[in-house]
Formats: sequence, structure tokens, C-alpha cells
Amino acid sequence: MEYCAFEKAFSETFDFWNLISDNDKKTICENTRTFSFPKGTTVHDGNSCSGVFVINSGSLRVYVLSDEGKEITLYRLHKGEMCMLSASCVLQAITFDVVVDAEEDCECMVINGDIFSQLSEKTPEIKIFALETAVERFSDVMWVLQQILFMSIDKRLAIFLLDESIRLGSDNIELTHEQIAKYIGSAREVVSRTLKYFSNEKIVENSRKGVKIINKELLKKSAL
Amino acid sequence: MEYCAFEKAFSETFDFWNLISDNDKKTICENTRTFSFPKGTTVHDGNSCSGVFVINSGSLRVYVLSDEGKEITLYRLHKGEMCMLSASCVLQAITFDVVVDAEEDCECMVINGDIFSQLSEKTPEIKIFALETAVERFSDVMWVLQQILFMSIDKRLAIFLLDESIRLGSDNIELTHEQIAKYIGSAREVVSRTLKYFSNEKIVENSRKGVKIINKELLKKSAL
Repeated sequence: MEYCAFEKAFSETFDFWNLISDNDKKTICENTRTFSFPKGTTVHDGNSCSGVFVINSGSLRVYVLSDEGKEITLYRLHKGEMCMLSASCVLQAITFDVVVDAEEDCECMVINGDIFSQLSEKTPEIKIFALETAVERFSDVMWVLQQILFMSIDKRLAIFLLDESIRLGSDNIELTHEQIAKYIGSAREVVSRTLKYFSNEKIVENSRKGVKIINKELLKKSAL
Repeated sequence: MEYCAFEKAFSETFDFWNLISDNDKKTICENTRTFSFPKGTTVHDGNSCSGVFVINSGSLRVYVLSDEGKEITLYRLHKGEMCMLSASCVLQAITFDVVVDAEEDCECMVINGDIFSQLSEKTPEIKIFALETAVERFSDVMWVLQQILFMSIDKRLAIFLLDESIRLGSDNIELTHEQIAKYIGSAREVVSRTLKYFSNEKIVENSRKGVKIINKELLKKSAL
């Protein structure tokens, strides 16, 4: 039985979909809207309960922001994944705010947060799923914390450049030092200094357009 | 009805206690043992499923440890609180390891992790409680992450010294720079440099025994 256009996506994303009542499925469907966010849009600004996001296409970046504008990327979400932290009204135990940006043009299904919260209070399967999703993100964030605090900057930068080159299918990483610093949770000066070192070692070439990897083997060694 | 000596403590710590069956209460009680840990004991080393700890007296410190021995304190647990991360077998979504030390002489009730896990699989109330506890800790850890990354070292150090003086009821903080660095997630050299600055400003006096706060008003200003 089809409840709405979101049926297929929801059954793939939500472990609980086949465990809940037809009525609950209908309620979720009726309280979902599709949004298109151009690259760069802030889709959740940290304070409100923007709802539960399920990604159809594109990607979202979830990060924390300091009063002075410093950012730390916590994780990224892609097609079929969901953003639970944007629905702080669902999880009372979450007492911190995150910001969510569309990192690429992005289409999302957004379920009303209050409705989802009400359903999760009466249906343990939904509540357990929401909490488990948050605990998985906890694990992601612990990884970020340990990366930032325990790993040397040249290693972090090397890993980032290799990951980006795989993701883009290109050795040209068209990002400014400022942007790279935000991604890896460091300062612009530190990234510039390290890229200069990589450049001296003939690992990369720096230009206005960004960073070009010229010796991937050496870069891989820096990432070890 | 009394199931065991732990009944009172469990009913105070576990929100779910009055929602579960008599049989489940009995199973939990029969699989609980009391342990006394002298100050400094590592009670959970990160790899195994040491069980669910409920603290009777004393305090536990939960931290992550790098390969090079660097530590970051995530949070502390006191009487009546429970440690869920020491029972990684209960929460599959937790994919990181923490270490747990007795920070003072400590008496704990320890529930067998596998038994707790089995019960949580069949009783949603227990599972929801376990997950909610983990998500609360997620919030604590986000606070630590933001403190470390966004806050200047003098502010962090000032807040730490004020907190310690309140906790101890004394202006003498008998900790080495190395120990303070571990608590606030910084390097020994950085702490020493900042304490020297505080000393020059006549905010503290440094000695072999530790740090003495001599101008609390100025220290409070540094904490703003």
C-alpha cells in the first residue's frame, strides 16, 4: 500500500518503517514536504526545531560555530541519510546546537519535528531509531575530536587532500586555505604553513585556484 | 517487594525501574556485583564490555587516550550516576573506546553487560534509557569539544581553577602543570606558560605543590 510519494525513500531510510502502523505512516507522509536548497544555503541555524531531514540528492554539512565565527565540521550527510540533530525537539537529551548547510545543491524531504516527536513518544521503535541515529553521530564526533586533538596537522591535511581527490575524481582541490582550515578544524595560518611545507617537499603545488596534488605517493606517506 | 540490596539505588538511578517486570528486576539484581576501586584504578580499559557501572560513592573519570598517551577528559561521574560507555556491548552504535578511572576511592555496582544487553533488546524502556544516557553524554562531549577548540587557553585555565577551588573548598590547587594540562585537554608547556602569565599578573602563585589563587576577582575576569 502506498501512503505517499515518499514511501520508497522512507522505507529505505527508516528501519522502523515496516514496524509501525498504517496510521503512523500516513501521519508521517502528510507532514512531510520536499525542499530544494541551492549550494551554500543554511538549512538549519541551530536554534529552532527545523524537522527531520532525509536527503534525496546532494549533501549536507553539519557543524558547530563559535561566537567568533570559527567552525568545526562534525560530519556530512548524503543521499538516503537523515539528519536528526536538526530536530532538537525530538531528542530532549541533545542540549547543543549545530548548524546545517547544503554543501551541494540539495533536495530533502523534511518531516515536521513536532509531529515526529509526538510519534516517537508513543512508538518505541521510532524513539529507539531516533536515539540510535544520534548515538551513531556521537561516534562520528568522537572520531573528529580525536583527529583534531591527537593527530598532527600535516597528517590531517594529507588525509583531507587524499579524501577530497577521491571524492572529486581529480587532483585539483579548488578550495582556499581558509576553506580547508574550516574543514579540518584548524586555523588558516596553520594550513598555509603546512601547505607551504608540502609544496617545498614537491608534494603539492599551491596556486590561487587551490591545491594541486603532484606526488600522491609522498602525500600518502604523510597521511600514515 | 525487595529483590536485592541494590533495589533502592537502582530505583533512584534507573528511570525504567518501575516499568519493568519483577522477573527483569530479579535478573538485573542477580547479575550485579559490588566492587571497591582504590583511587587511580583503571576500571574500564576501552576494549572489553566491562558492564554497566552505577556509582555508590567516589567518582569516575571517563576519557579518551591517544596512541602517544595523550588524554582528553570527557566527563566525570558521581554518586547515583551511571556509566554506559563501559558497556559497549549494550550500544552497538558506539564505535569508539573510552577509558574509565577511579578518580577517588570508589564503590560501584556493576551489572553484567551481556545480561543488560539481552534485557534491553527485549524491553524497549531499558533500551531507550541506555540510549538516552549515551545521548546526554554526547551533549557533554560536544561541550568539551567546543571548549577545547573555541575557547582561548587562559579562559579555559581560569574556569578550571575556579571550578576546582569551589569543588575543593580551597584556593590551593595541588595539581602539577602536567595534570592540569590533562584535565583541560592542553599541552603541559601551554599550561605552564599561561600560569606564568597569571603569576605575573598577580592572579596566582605557582609553587612545587601546585597553584594558589591569590586574586579571585582577576581570575574571574579571565574566565569571562
